[in-house]
Amino acid sequence: MIQTAIMGHGVVGSGVAEILLGHSKLINQKIKDDINVKYILDLRDFNDLPYSDKFIKDFNIIANDDEIKIVVEVMGGINPAYDFVKRLLLSGKSVVTSNKELVAAKGDELLKIASDNNANFLFEASVGGGIPIIRPIAQCLAANEITEIKGILNGTTNYILNKMIVDNMDFESALSLAQEMGFAEKDPTADIDGHDASRKICILASLAFGKHVCPDQVSTEGISNITLNDVEYADSFDCAIKLIGFAKKVKNGHITASVKPMLVSRSHILSDVNGVFNAIMVSGDSVGDVMFYGRGAGKLPTASAVVADVIDCAKHLHSRKYINWVEGSNDYVITTDEKVRLYVYIQSNEYNMLCEQFTTLFSDNTWHIKNDYKKEIAFITDKDYESVLMKKINSIKCDTFKVMHTLF
Amino acid sequence: MIQTAIMGHGVVGSGVAEILLGHSKLINQKIKDDINVKYILDLRDFNDLPYSDKFIKDFNIIANDDEIKIVVEVMGGINPAYDFVKRLLLSGKSVVTSNKELVAAKGDELLKIASDNNANFLFEASVGGGIPIIRPIAQCLAANEITEIKGILNGTTNYILNKMIVDNMDFESALSLAQEMGFAEKDPTADIDGHDASRKICILASLAFGKHVCPDQVSTEGISNITLNDVEYADSFDCAIKLIGFAKKVKNGHITASVKPMLVSRSHILSDVNGVFNAIMVSGDSVGDVMFYGRGAGKLPTASAVVADVIDCAKHLHSRKYINWVEGSNDYVITTDEKVRLYVYIQSNEYNMLCEQFTTLFSDNTWHIKNDYKKEIAFITDKDYESVLMKKINSIKCDTFKVMHTLF
Repeated sequence: MIQTAIMGHGVVGSGVAEILLGHSKLINQKIKDDINVKYILDLRDFNDLPYSDKFIKDFNIIANDDEIKIVVEVMGGINPAYDFVKRLLLSGKSVVTSNKELVAAKGDELLKIASDNNANFLFEASVGGGIPIIRPIAQCLAANEITEIKGILNGTTNYILNKMIVDNMDFESALSLAQEMGFAEKDPTADIDGHDASRKICILASLAFGKHVCPDQVSTEGISNITLNDVEYADSFDCAIKLIGFAKKVKNGHITASVKPMLVSRSHILSDVNGVFNAIMVSGDSVGDVMFYGRGAGKLPTASAVVADVIDCAKHLHSRKYINWVEGSNDYVITTDEKVRLYVYIQSNEYNMLCEQFTTLFSDNTWHIKNDYKKEIAFITDKDYESVLMKKINSIKCDTFKVMHTLF
Repeated sequence: MIQTAIMGHGVVGSGVAEILLGHSKLINQKIKDDINVKYILDLRDFNDLPYSDKFIKDFNIIANDDEIKIVVEVMGGINPAYDFVKRLLLSGKSVVTSNKELVAAKGDELLKIASDNNANFLFEASVGGGIPIIRPIAQCLAANEITEIKGILNGTTNYILNKMIVDNMDFESALSLAQEMGFAEKDPTADIDGHDASRKICILASLAFGKHVCPDQVSTEGISNITLNDVEYADSFDCAIKLIGFAKKVKNGHITASVKPMLVSRSHILSDVNGVFNAIMVSGDSVGDVMFYGRGAGKLPTASAVVADVIDCAKHLHSRKYINWVEGSNDYVITTDEKVRLYVYIQSNEYNMLCEQFTTLFSDNTWHIKNDYKKEIAFITDKDYESVLMKKINSIKCDTFKVMHTLF
């Protein structure tokens, strides 16, 4: 009998309890032992549940119980989760979490503590909900040098963008609908401003490239400035606008990392990832591109990933999983000047002058759409260094302009 | 120092040697030990290779060397691979293979022998080349009851179908091109007749549902009967024709399993899997649908999956991975009569009569295309039991007809 505890009985926590208690036969068959949920820590009362006798309000009961070998942390947020997890790992208990904020902020430190205390710290559910991604990167692609990771890491923003593309809704209406459907929170900032995706690309980059990346090192841009106009121009260029998390190895042991809306060519499979689905594409030197796709959030998908980690911990109570990365550094994540194609939107009441500037700087051969009525031009530049392109774009005299990266 | 041997120095075997020898620093960091390739078994001579001193021609040298802990079997075929692998597992050596024929035919027996002798038998590379799929099903989705698996499991046929769809090539020309490009073998039977996909769905179904499935239990149909005509009608119905491997839990502990060309709706993400790429969609009761995508074949992708298994074996020299399934039975795989939509093509020189029959049996409301000039009708039936639909279709008097399943 392996004793476990769950900290937090919110959406994911109740899903974890549901699966651990409801699928116990299936699980026990797999590990040839029994997993028992001894405690559930939550400050709220849940008297009506069939397992209400398991609820406790004092963290110390878990920390001081030597029988407890595995603890699930699904409270979310940095505090008090960080202190709790640290204390548990220091006492040799293994911890499984879905808390991306915690892993993105403190992953390196917690992995080291786990390693020093012969415990496991697993977090498959922190990225992509139920989509297997952490273990495949760490184990299945272990023979590869990973060169790049890019993906649609946030279901809420993908749902909103999809509604704009398919149903011609504007951003505000699509956001309201997402909130009604339960796909966006009341305060949707973390999703629409890209912070959620930023935490996830931190975790993926840390794991794939071996050094910790913090969210404040990731250049992060959300989707709130995307207009129906942009969506329509993108469509004319046979592209869909997607919020893409991106990380890549560059020279001298550095990496770049960003979260930003991009125009993704419809011939790229990431453009076909719709609704609340997530997809993560990993490029390895041997395997080429592999992609992992599924629901990136939701109670049971996320909970099932947590429980898979619990099962793995139970199978490895006395050995260490080889998920690891080391401390990062300030100069580790850099910005580079690479050859790119940019999407550019320019508008000016001095439309003739605008057209002249466009032709002079980019030539009429550039893939472009002119809207004489709205006095605006949208175009996709030829491939060139970003600095060169931005210098040209910044020199255009116009009333408004917008630039987005592309993925062809 | 962990001593290993590679049996077979063909395409995959040479890739395994290349990665194990070329990436040794990366690999040794991960396992904190050294993996050494002590022998390479091949009957041919490779005197010009920098590692030519490792080649041997006698299997007994490997079998009798107690230092060898892990053996890679990449010879292919059932014999002598089966005898060799069995003997190695019986002596407690772990075996890693990419040999889908062997795993599909003898997986249950070899897994049992491995288990009885505290050794591991791993075969990540046997399905989907470098795409992580075996370990994600066994571990990441461990908290799920898997209900269905479907996917594009063969890159050669997907390449051919894609050429027919995109470039309007007929089957024969697309096959020739695939052979020229090295995507199809000289004797392409195993690919185009669906046998390769059939072996892979056997392995996936055995793993996901827990009982061994043999290729002769899988209803298997290839793509050689697909015409440009079919491809064009499919396109008119907003579908792409794909060779789909399929396995599903049905009632009373039975499953169904098949390989057949299907019309896949363009709104389904499997329709976007093009060229030599593979994709496998797994449905679990908690996670919903997750999909794994990448190059399904090729030297380095496949070899990198083999090496990932070698690394896993090295990490688990004294413990067992929980990949397992039990012996199958004759009545385990059944055919069921379920509600489906079928694609039907009918042609007759008695065209008026054909049209009348169509209207009588299926009504003009059915989604259909009439070609008066060619005297043919293609249509997608409404959803009904397959037996009911087939009875109607079989009653149509026509010169030729064709039926395909659909995936909407």
